[in-house]
Amino acid sequence: MAAAARSGLVVTAHPGDFVWRAGGAIALHARKGYRMKIVCLSFGERGESQWAWKKAGVRLEDVKAQRRVEAEEAAGILGAEIEFLDVGDYPLRVGEAVLDRLVDVYREERPAFVLTHALEDPYNFDHPVAAHVAQEGRVIAQAAGHKPDPDRSYAAPPVFLFEPHQPEQCNFKPQVILNIDAVWETKFRAFQVLAAQKHLWEYYTRVALNRGVQGGRNSGTAMTYGEAYQRLFPMTLEELA
Amino acid sequence: MAAAARSGLVVTAHPGDFVWRAGGAIALHARKGYRMKIVCLSFGERGESQWAWKKAGVRLEDVKAQRRVEAEEAAGILGAEIEFLDVGDYPLRVGEAVLDRLVDVYREERPAFVLTHALEDPYNFDHPVAAHVAQEGRVIAQAAGHKPDPDRSYAAPPVFLFEPHQPEQCNFKPQVILNIDAVWETKFRAFQVLAAQKHLWEYYTRVALNRGVQGGRNSGTAMTYGEAYQRLFPMTLEELA
Amino acid sequence: MAAAARSGLVVTAHPGDFVWRAGGAIALHARKGYRMKIVCLSFGERGESQWAWKKAGVRLEDVKAQRRVEAEEAAGILGAEIEFLDVGDYPLRVGEAVLDRLVDVYREERPAFVLTHALEDPYNFDHPVAAHVAQEGRVIAQAAGHKPDPDRSYAAPPVFLFEPHQPEQCNFKPQVILNIDAVWETKFRAFQVLAAQKHLWEYYTRVALNRGVQGGRNSGTAMTYGEAYQRLFPMTLEELA
Amino acid sequence: MAAAARSGLVVTAHPGDFVWRAGGAIALHARKGYRMKIVCLSFGERGESQWAWKKAGVRLEDVKAQRRVEAEEAAGILGAEIEFLDVGDYPLRVGEAVLDRLVDVYREERPAFVLTHALEDPYNFDHPVAAHVAQEGRVIAQAAGHKPDPDRSYAAPPVFLFEPHQPEQCNFKPQVILNIDAVWETKFRAFQVLAAQKHLWEYYTRVALNRGVQGGRNSGTAMTYGEAYQRLFPMTLEELA
Amino acid sequence: MAAAARSGLVVTAHPGDFVWRAGGAIALHARKGYRMKIVCLSFGERGESQWAWKKAGVRLEDVKAQRRVEAEEAAGILGAEIEFLDVGDYPLRVGEAVLDRLVDVYREERPAFVLTHALEDPYNFDHPVAAHVAQEGRVIAQAAGHKPDPDRSYAAPPVFLFEPHQPEQCNFKPQVILNIDAVWETKFRAFQVLAAQKHLWEYYTRVALNRGVQGGRNSGTAMTYGEAYQRLFPMTLEELA
Amino acid sequence: MAAAARSGLVVTAHPGDFVWRAGGAIALHARKGYRMKIVCLSFGERGESQWAWKKAGVRLEDVKAQRRVEAEEAAGILGAEIEFLDVGDYPLRVGEAVLDRLVDVYREERPAFVLTHALEDPYNFDHPVAAHVAQEGRVIAQAAGHKPDPDRSYAAPPVFLFEPHQPEQCNFKPQVILNIDAVWETKFRAFQVLAAQKHLWEYYTRVALNRGVQGGRNSGTAMTYGEAYQRLFPMTLEELA
Repeated sequence: MAAAARSGLVVTAHPGDFVWRAGGAIALHARKGYRMKIVCLSFGERGESQWAWKKAGVRLEDVKAQRRVEAEEAAGILGAEIEFLDVGDYPLRVGEAVLDRLVDVYREERPAFVLTHALEDPYNFDHPVAAHVAQEGRVIAQAAGHKPDPDRSYAAPPVFLFEPHQPEQCNFKPQVILNIDAVWETKFRAFQVLAAQKHLWEYYTRVALNRGVQGGRNSGTAMTYGEAYQRLFPMTLEELA
Repeated sequence: MAAAARSGLVVTAHPGDFVWRAGGAIALHARKGYRMKIVCLSFGERGESQWAWKKAGVRLEDVKAQRRVEAEEAAGILGAEIEFLDVGDYPLRVGEAVLDRLVDVYREERPAFVLTHALEDPYNFDHPVAAHVAQEGRVIAQAAGHKPDPDRSYAAPPVFLFEPHQPEQCNFKPQVILNIDAVWETKFRAFQVLAAQKHLWEYYTRVALNRGVQGGRNSGTAMTYGEAYQRLFPMTLEELA
Repeated sequence: MAAAARSGLVVTAHPGDFVWRAGGAIALHARKGYRMKIVCLSFGERGESQWAWKKAGVRLEDVKAQRRVEAEEAAGILGAEIEFLDVGDYPLRVGEAVLDRLVDVYREERPAFVLTHALEDPYNFDHPVAAHVAQEGRVIAQAAGHKPDPDRSYAAPPVFLFEPHQPEQCNFKPQVILNIDAVWETKFRAFQVLAAQKHLWEYYTRVALNRGVQGGRNSGTAMTYGEAYQRLFPMTLEELA
Repeated sequence: MAAAARSGLVVTAHPGDFVWRAGGAIALHARKGYRMKIVCLSFGERGESQWAWKKAGVRLEDVKAQRRVEAEEAAGILGAEIEFLDVGDYPLRVGEAVLDRLVDVYREERPAFVLTHALEDPYNFDHPVAAHVAQEGRVIAQAAGHKPDPDRSYAAPPVFLFEPHQPEQCNFKPQVILNIDAVWETKFRAFQVLAAQKHLWEYYTRVALNRGVQGGRNSGTAMTYGEAYQRLFPMTLEELA
Repeated sequence: MAAAARSGLVVTAHPGDFVWRAGGAIALHARKGYRMKIVCLSFGERGESQWAWKKAGVRLEDVKAQRRVEAEEAAGILGAEIEFLDVGDYPLRVGEAVLDRLVDVYREERPAFVLTHALEDPYNFDHPVAAHVAQEGRVIAQAAGHKPDPDRSYAAPPVFLFEPHQPEQCNFKPQVILNIDAVWETKFRAFQVLAAQKHLWEYYTRVALNRGVQGGRNSGTAMTYGEAYQRLFPMTLEELA
Repeated sequence: MAAAARSGLVVTAHPGDFVWRAGGAIALHARKGYRMKIVCLSFGERGESQWAWKKAGVRLEDVKAQRRVEAEEAAGILGAEIEFLDVGDYPLRVGEAVLDRLVDVYREERPAFVLTHALEDPYNFDHPVAAHVAQEGRVIAQAAGHKPDPDRSYAAPPVFLFEPHQPEQCNFKPQVILNIDAVWETKFRAFQVLAAQKHLWEYYTRVALNRGVQGGRNSGTAMTYGEAYQRLFPMTLEELA
């Protein structure tokens, strides 16, 4: 029962991000009984929906509705609940109300870990904004004077940064390779929801295979599919091996 | 029994290093049933024995003998076996025979983890040499053509760098804080063997206490005494929390 | 008289910061006759006052009032004047009026040096905001067209970053260790004003003692208590030793 | 004709920046038939016009008008068109309208390359803001849902960061040295428009000469005057030499 | 004829390296008429020939002979000449005679570019040694007093570092993506010579495909297969686009 | 008299280095009464004497003799004593005897500061070797068991790295700018001894002028000629301004 109560939080800028970059972790922990929650700051409606805009006369609301359906379907496949904060994208800007909602989510979920974007991304300026608010919300949730409630308990969870599209250009350094063999098929089904981005199915399959090879090489125990993460904070351990 | 068979390896330049920097990890894993082995490259006879040289007429051999006794006593308290490679210090230089012996140790011990020095240390040039040979030995032990034996099994273990005296100047970044509360008293008893360096007892007690506070702050679970480590390679995980 | 006219400026996010991190520098320069001025951007009322919020029914205004009294007392002990800009904390946000006031402070004080937070702090997002505005105000104060006054003289002072709680995680690198032996007792009296944070008295006493050991080791001249700083800009010298 | 249609974009915080830092690249590409466009975010009216403010009673509008004349003259000499976005300086702040205009410029010009400031500059906080908006505009211009137009074609151009005043303090690393021998005289004529900053004529002449020596040393082919740039993204090549 | 006379040099630790990491560049430039020369420091006989050592009673000389045949065949397919310096591997050590021979090669070939390993590789200590000697030889070849000959002309060529197995762990940052579409089939044929490492055929095919996607994304011009390189020195240019 | 007894040590790879990079510091401290000692590891006979090798039939011994005369003359002008360790250059290699002599020099001179090369230099592999031995000798001189002598007193001095030819490529970051106005004329006279390198007279005059401008800008106090240094260790201070 204790395990059933644990949760994990994912904070992303756009819907595709949680599928390509963290879909394995989401599905894996969902299967282990974690309550997985995705906070998706935008629908990726302006900058990550090229195909949708090719249709003459399409309106922003249509694109957002389409992406919402798609994102909810992908989240469902992965076993996660999704909440959209609808802040807009390209550029993505975060005001106080959104930060406030995110703080509430941290306190409601008391997640055992948080997944978010790399700290830098010269290809996409929405990503570091999402990573920043994910971190800032995590810290503000600790502030006793923010919506004070002496009965509340909350401990800031560890933060894992998922892999950006061009990792070296983002100064992303893998410190954890998560074995996602058990849920690869689920992750790939979530890929297929993003039908317009078929070229990325293959790209991220190759990423998962190569991270899997690296995971095996680093641990001495073979795995096929991996997801790379960078940890933001030191971990405490009771044993080194 | 499986657990009893596991081992951990520590590669240090001088005797004090394994006491101040890794004494907690050694005692903790010894208590958990690991076979702990220290490879100590020198006796610290020239550069880390100031007090011994104050006695008129003392000879290098005397100092080495003294330091050996002390180091063996400290290793015994921590629950580890110690092997000296006696390469000399200040400067510490590593030839092929020493590297070869270290490769053998990796293959004999098949350690579950290795502890060694930080990669840089502008205050002590023996330290990065020890860290380099610890890493190089670990890799050469994988080479099928080095003393070939088709029946041998060996997987290169994870490497943890222990904390140098002035961590920021060595570009040391803690990624793991090991809770050493259960063995603090043992670690401190090993300190006391190094009777001539009483000022360091206090210095490293303070380091342990402050790392303990940081460990608690990073994990949300209080600890009193901590030892900080930097991991050299990504770790593979089956679960993030 | 010239010396009496010199001043030092300290820009912090919360009251505790100037006590734990820069209390020695403040007391030392006050004793040398500098006019020391602290600009404290918030009262730390939401995020750094856990104990105060444990009292049922306490209001934000009460907490702020309490923290103001405490901060003024600590500043008084250290020998500094304190000005609160009351921008709120967790999150701390800086608008144009606050920046403008800070520019005025630079011009009024013409400080010989400025002390502020490290540039990064993943544990506390108020800190880098404070460091940024401290730097930006320092530069804008040079702009001839900002509240122009041809008779004014102002030269941008050197910036020293004081030590954050977990220095390596903030990429903080000590470049200066200030000997605070002469004022340690005063700094410790200021600690005692922060009666609810007794655990930090000990933590920062240990930090001061270990920085003192490092100061002695780097200079060859023993000191007991040190405060570490990182310089942001090159210093000009007339002599290297 | 194809070549005549190519263009280059320069985004700077203040007028002097495009003269001292990128004047050679502008003149060189103008001479090669590129349409060169400068977007100058401010007139440098408050922070980069010290001399103008020495005249009693001068008003902000006068200073801006003066700087505009000067900047247009310098741009003309270099062969570029200039557009002022007049956002103010010291501090320079960029709102949505300005970002929006910059996105339009990217789409109108479809530049073959963009030149802007280094990513960090502790001496001048307007510079990294300009560099950030130059990058963000470049990416938003790719967003199909921003002012959608299915007939538009746009590819994000490579970004070159020009050299700041104190390159090492800005973590600027030259990756490209542009040979500006053919246009040095033109660049120097543009210097002379900035009559009040005669000391910088000499400073940046020395920079150009020393970068020229380095360019020769790196390529094996002598040049006299160079301009250094850092590339933000990998370049694709069909041949390495 | 001038083009026919140009050459490129590749310095690797082991035979596999030039195939997986630089095979595209070698084949591409060979096809363009460059004389391509590989200096292979060892046969990878001890550390990169696991399969060969599985045969009972195999001797070091047999393994070396096998690897030589294989490497020569792969080099032949790629269109390069290969020279073995036979220094041994795991560990790879370079003495003065080897450095001397490498200097001669630089002077004989006067290469237009050099390809070698990344500067760091915690998985393989032979690699940075090879990268170091490749660089040192390049510089010593400039020394007028090394085997003086006033008639000789030599200019140190640009250095490109090819991609290691786990790029982020080696602090490798791609700055150039070479389009190898025209020679992919040739590179893959060279893979097939390394029959015992079939798992790497797939790994490096995926690397090539993903670098190709990145190349397209960075340039706006699609490519299918790419090879990533890091440049060690600034390049001089006459035009930025 | 105390001042007269102070000394400064300079460790360089080749003769030109101490002239171009540290000539100002040498002359300045000599004038202040410091005993300045240069340890020059080689004569730069192979790699830094291009002009000398243009004469037909010249022998290595001739070149070394020529460079010795020149270096002694330059050292004399600057007011320093010079000792050659004659280890050869391109490549420069340091054996135990040379390290041993350097340790003796540290103990004889007990310098108040040491000047040496930057830690990295991809253009010149002799430079980091010299910087390494300068650092290692400084530390070994502290070892009580190296040529033990209980009456000896020695404290490891601060290390200043002087500016390499292409500072950004060497990750050199100026932290100190030394005002060398008082001795510029002397430094320039030492330049003139290096008659064959006239192009470097101008290059390093420009470097000195631009560092002087930067020194003035960083301190608010004008200077004309500067020399940039990076400090390796924290400095201890009794006052921040």
